[in-house]
Amino acid sequence: MKYLFIALALMTTIHTMSQEIALPQPQKSGGMSLMEALANRQSTREFNPDSNLSLQQLADLFWAACGYNREDKLTIPTAMNRQEISVYAIMPDGAYQYDAKNNKLVMVTDADLRTLAGMQEYSHKAFLNIAIVSDREKMPHDIFAGTDAGAVMQNIYLWCAANGVGTVTRGSFDGETLGKALKLGEKQQIILVQSVGY
Amino acid sequence: MKYLFIALALMTTIHTMSQEIALPQPQKSGGMSLMEALANRQSTREFNPDSNLSLQQLADLFWAACGYNREDKLTIPTAMNRQEISVYAIMPDGAYQYDAKNNKLVMVTDADLRTLAGMQEYSHKAFLNIAIVSDREKMPHDIFAGTDAGAVMQNIYLWCAANGVGTVTRGSFDGETLGKALKLGEKQQIILVQSVGY
Repeated sequence: MKYLFIALALMTTIHTMSQEIALPQPQKSGGMSLMEALANRQSTREFNPDSNLSLQQLADLFWAACGYNREDKLTIPTAMNRQEISVYAIMPDGAYQYDAKNNKLVMVTDADLRTLAGMQEYSHKAFLNIAIVSDREKMPHDIFAGTDAGAVMQNIYLWCAANGVGTVTRGSFDGETLGKALKLGEKQQIILVQSVGY
Repeated sequence: MKYLFIALALMTTIHTMSQEIALPQPQKSGGMSLMEALANRQSTREFNPDSNLSLQQLADLFWAACGYNREDKLTIPTAMNRQEISVYAIMPDGAYQYDAKNNKLVMVTDADLRTLAGMQEYSHKAFLNIAIVSDREKMPHDIFAGTDAGAVMQNIYLWCAANGVGTVTRGSFDGETLGKALKLGEKQQIILVQSVGY
């Protein structure tokens, strides 16, 4: 019986390991200039359901959104350096938490949660919806929970503008249902959901 | 008597006109790539009190922060397109509101308000402090007032990173005193103040 448990535990570990997507190193140079990206920033509300993003694009996009640009600091500032933000990738084959330290996506469910990612139909068609989540235990203040999430949102907008990818952010969604599906903790709140795709 | 009033009105107009700084056209291309700017994004808390920014830099910086990149849309998204954000430049020779439509800075006071821009000494030394202000009548929701201001903050960070200029944002300041000095309306709230300088 004891060995059965060990064997099961081992299998579960292997299974969990296979649910991670190791990302290639993000490309931290080249590409469009900041000023051109700002000139191109816009919201798109139509997405091609047959298009997707490459692993390299996901690596670049999530690093831009809130990756580490120094050993312990991010591409965004956070109020009092609380680093309370986490982001989730909601894609057709499942939903993943972005692990910035280890540059990978860790599966939280293999369900397609895109229908929960927004009330508008376009959000169900976009290849990727990003949930920007705040740990409200670390950041109880509403406005600062907002400013930090807003910085992530803007990074995503600019990356999309620089790469010819469409995006739109929204604050209205069923946060409770989506939060449960993403297995968020009680104090974690989805601040924004942003659709991304061609 | 009637002519005296007209003459006075005319003089006031001319006087007011002279309190505006017409900005050169912002340079919307060239410069550092978005990804490099993200890699360089950081907070600086030391400023050289003898340095300043050129008019071209001010034009580029404020356009990046929240200028128009289309006839009626900004470099930042705003929740429900409320466009409730305004920014103020607090500099040694006075404080100015950025008029994005007309690409100019409009003086609100000729006093040096930098000592009101933050409790930390560095904010008194930085050439420029930017007050990011939300019209809470247009945007009553705390979190979205935060997300929109956060997008402006991040644009300022990235412009500074791309141009070798130091910056740091903060949420703690005497908002009531600074708001009065900036002649803000009752419903206008300073969300963040960001120091900028070499």
